Amino acid sequence: MSEPFTRPFRTALTDRLALRHPIVLAPMGGVAGGALAAAVSAGGGLGQIGIGYGDHAWLTREFDRAGGARVGCGFITWMLAERPQLLDAALERGAAAITLAFGDPGPFAARIRGAGVPLICQVAGVEEARRALEVGADVLVAQGGEGGGHAARHRSTMTLVPELVDLVAGLGADVPVLAAGGIGDGRGLAAALVLGADGALVGTRFWACAEALVAPGAHRRATRAVGDDTIATTVYDQVRGYTWPDGYTSRVLRTPFVAHWHGRDRELTGALDELAVQYRGAVENEDYDVAQIAVGEAIGIVRDVGSAADVVADLVREASAALEASRPGAR
Amino acid sequence: MSEPFTRPFRTALTDRLALRHPIVLAPMGGVAGGALAAAVSAGGGLGQIGIGYGDHAWLTREFDRAGGARVGCGFITWMLAERPQLLDAALERGAAAITLAFGDPGPFAARIRGAGVPLICQVAGVEEARRALEVGADVLVAQGGEGGGHAARHRSTMTLVPELVDLVAGLGADVPVLAAGGIGDGRGLAAALVLGADGALVGTRFWACAEALVAPGAHRRATRAVGDDTIATTVYDQVRGYTWPDGYTSRVLRTPFVAHWHGRDRELTGALDELAVQYRGAVENEDYDVAQIAVGEAIGIVRDVGSAADVVADLVREASAALEASRPGAR
Ligand SMILES: Cc1cc2nc3c(=O)[nH]c(=O)nc-3n(C[C@H](O)[C@H](O)[C@H](O)COP(=O)(O)O)c2cc1C
Ligand SMILES: Cc1cc2nc3c(=O)[nH]c(=O)nc-3n(C[C@H](O)[C@H](O)[C@H](O)COP(=O)(O)O)c2cc1C
Repeated sequence: MSEPFTRPFRTALTDRLALRHPIVLAPMGGVAGGALAAAVSAGGGLGQIGIGYGDHAWLTREFDRAGGARVGCGFITWMLAERPQLLDAALERGAAAITLAFGDPGPFAARIRGAGVPLICQVAGVEEARRALEVGADVLVAQGGEGGGHAARHRSTMTLVPELVDLVAGLGADVPVLAAGGIGDGRGLAAALVLGADGALVGTRFWACAEALVAPGAHRRATRAVGDDTIATTVYDQVRGYTWPDGYTSRVLRTPFVAHWHGRDRELTGALDELAVQYRGAVENEDYDVAQIAVGEAIGIVRDVGSAADVVADLVREASAALEASRPGAR
Repeated sequence: MSEPFTRPFRTALTDRLALRHPIVLAPMGGVAGGALAAAVSAGGGLGQIGIGYGDHAWLTREFDRAGGARVGCGFITWMLAERPQLLDAALERGAAAITLAFGDPGPFAARIRGAGVPLICQVAGVEEARRALEVGADVLVAQGGEGGGHAARHRSTMTLVPELVDLVAGLGADVPVLAAGGIGDGRGLAAALVLGADGALVGTRFWACAEALVAPGAHRRATRAVGDDTIATTVYDQVRGYTWPDGYTSRVLRTPFVAHWHGRDRELTGALDELAVQYRGAVENEDYDVAQIAVGEAIGIVRDVGSAADVVADLVREASAALEASRPGAR
């Protein structure tokens, strides 16, 4: 019974993207820089740089830091629409894949696929999935609302993954489906696979890695939190002046700041100038009673700050063990 | 490779409750009557009658309909507190287990355990789980917000299950943990098991069974829905005059009625008398543009109305197949 532990998982994803492990780094804006992306790729997954709110200089710096590693790159689609030249920059830097989330991928799909680069679309529901397949997504990511950072949060990973797997199969599309949201260790990777996914796109677990662009104080706070300590809110977007379209919230730790302001939109709007100043100060001072810590519910089972390559190896090893231990008659 | 398919799953739950399969029927109030409960037990799981808002006459009738089958019984804890004699009635009828959800199990735990009946506590977060263990729960159910009917919805199944499994292990408690919320077929059962659960408590999939107390028109509507068509709301509780404590919502199909009234609490309160009449009429006329259909996100992969024993068998067979197909090197 020990032999399966040594064999890698082979899925439509590992075949399609030529990966050793069916694990993709979530393109966490401002958090997944070149160092983290390169480390995940070195570990056998696919690393991705998360552009987020970053500009051309940020993109250049992080691709430099990736040091030529084979890494993908992810955009917030509605922001990309405001500065489409960043897509060209990423393609010029040789992005191994492009992930689009939060908006219509249509306007960018032809450019990406024309460059021969796999298009990964992260979607939060059935209609979005249909649209992604229509514009030619090469990989579909089913994003559940339990995940860290932004999401539309209609759905959870547990139900969205099998439903989209069936949708893809029903359409006869040859498109791998990944699970995203709530995958904090190898048990979650195993769950993704048995739900029918071809792998997992993982954010929070890699956020808690030494290579992530995260301050040590934030790491310390988060690895002591339970999963109940997160909340999906728009407070930080409002305070930071990011004009997310309706329907999106960001999952963050429930800091005293969020606990106070969540649900008080009218007051918040009135105090916005003042709060913006307070917020910027808190970020500078690494004051995590106020500054945001964007992590998902899975933070409750993430107890340490790891190195990304170890995390990849652990995910695979634990997933394999969980599958083995759960077989009929195994216990 | 075919031999594992014929072996049953053995877990701490099947041992503890002497079940053939690690599957428990959710005590869906007014939906899980004696016929459904008996059918699930006959199939090798544990059936449960869901008292919900039912009275003593309802309880008696449904235990009669169970025809002496070994079935458990579930209560809405805050309602049980208003009429504690129903617990005595259930114990007198020989309930094989008692499930408590939505409120503090403390006041009832001694009575249940004193009768030698296993106490199953359904919880939606970490604090609630600690409390359930403290009062001596024999089985813990981790309820994710993707599920049908009522829930506190802080958490999703994908993250709550492994976190509570770790909590129980960390406390050295010998208490099986079940997953609830979003388990619509055997892939979901397999996911529950690899996440570390000892089985699954299943609502929506059994709601869509011939033995459930559900009108055919509701079954027809729901089996055509996608998972995105559900919404967590308090509209129906308000219209029906059920005074649920703060923090609970019910996941239902987004009928035209809900689509109109959700988020309009002030107007709704003003029109309540009128709407209550309209609502009762709709239920009588089986008008499912107005009447509620309480199902979870998993409805999106439930395409047919089955018989409960077949559903149990399918869950087990599909789970076994999903585990086998997902092992390293299997694809
Ligand atoms: C700090 C943080 C930043 C994120 N930023 C982005 C982003 O810029 N673009 C994006 O597509 N997804 C972003 N996400 C969402 C992830 O792509 C992914 O859906 C999520 O992390 C998966 O859930 P998990 O955090 O439980 O692994 C972010 C997530 C986190 C935690
Ligand atoms: C129609 C319906 C009624 C429910 N009523 C109750 C109830 O009375 N008591 C209870 O503990 N849970 C109740 N639930 C919740 C279930 O116990 C369980 O948490 C849920 O069904 C699991 O998610 P699933 O529907 O995706 O299987 C109900 C669920 C449904 C669908």
